[in-house]
Amino acid sequence: MTQQDNKVEWAPIATPILTELLGKVRFNEQGLISAIAQDESRNVLMLAWMNREALAETLTTGRVCYYSRSRKTLWRKGESSGQVQHLLAAALDCDLDCLLLTVRQKGVACHTGRRSCFYNALTPTGLIELTEPDITPDALYGAKTSS
Amino acid sequence: MTQQDNKVEWAPIATPILTELLGKVRFNEQGLISAIAQDESRNVLMLAWMNREALAETLTTGRVCYYSRSRKTLWRKGESSGQVQHLLAAALDCDLDCLLLTVRQKGVACHTGRRSCFYNALTPTGLIELTEPDITPDALYGAKTSS
Repeated sequence: MTQQDNKVEWAPIATPILTELLGKVRFNEQGLISAIAQDESRNVLMLAWMNREALAETLTTGRVCYYSRSRKTLWRKGESSGQVQHLLAAALDCDLDCLLLTVRQKGVACHTGRRSCFYNALTPTGLIELTEPDITPDALYGAKTSS
Repeated sequence: MTQQDNKVEWAPIATPILTELLGKVRFNEQGLISAIAQDESRNVLMLAWMNREALAETLTTGRVCYYSRSRKTLWRKGESSGQVQHLLAAALDCDLDCLLLTVRQKGVACHTGRRSCFYNALTPTGLIELTEPDITPDALYGAKTSS
C-alpha cells in the first residue's frame, strides 16, 4: 500500500457519557445496529453492523470496530488486511437505530480490493461493475480470505 | 416548499432484466434489504428497507418506494409529505445484501423536517443535534404524523 496511514486524533468518549450514549441507541432484537461508513470525500464505503461492545470500543478508541454476524465476533476493521478505519465523526439517525460514521479509510474498504463495496450498478442492461479492484484480495490478505 | 421538484427521467428496468436483477439480490430472512439514500451532493439522507416488491417498483418507476417494517406495507417515499425521491442510480454492495441509492430528494428526507436523518452527533459531551428542521412536521404532514 502506498497510501499513508494518516491517523487522526479521536477525542475518546469517556464514561459516564459513553454509558449515557449507549443507553440511547436502539439496538435491534439481535442487539445490533447498522452502521454506514462514509469517507471524507463523502464516498459511501460500506454498511456493517455493531453490537454494544463494538460501538463502545469504536467510540473509545477511534478505531472502527464492527460486529461480524457470520463469525459472531468483534471485527476490528483492518485487523487482517491493514485497511483500518479511523473515526472522524459518528451520528445517529432520527430513530436512533442507524449510525453514520465519517471515517478516514486506509486503502480500500471492500474485501474485493475496491475502495467502496457499492460497485454493482443496477442498470437496464443488467448488473454492471462500476469499479475495478485497486488491489487483489491476495495482496490484502495473503492466503486468508476475510477482513 | 420553495424547492422545485426537478423530476428526472429514469430509464425503467424492464422484464426480464428486472427479474434477473431481483434474483441476484440477497434479501434477508424477512425478505428485506437495507437501502441507503444519498443525494447528488453525496449527503447521506436516510437508511430504510425494501422488499422485493418495493425494489421492483423503484426500478420500474424511478420513484423510490421502501417497505415500512412498522406498518408492514409499501412506503412510497413522499406519498404523505410530498417529499419524494427520484432515483438517479442504484448499486448493490459486494455481498448483494445492501443497496446504495443516489436520489434527487425533493425538500427533506427526514420526518422531523430535516434534510438528513443523521443529525444526532455522538460527542464527548453527549448527543448533539447537528441541524435544525427546515420545516415543521405539521407543515409536512398536516395533522398526520408519519411519512
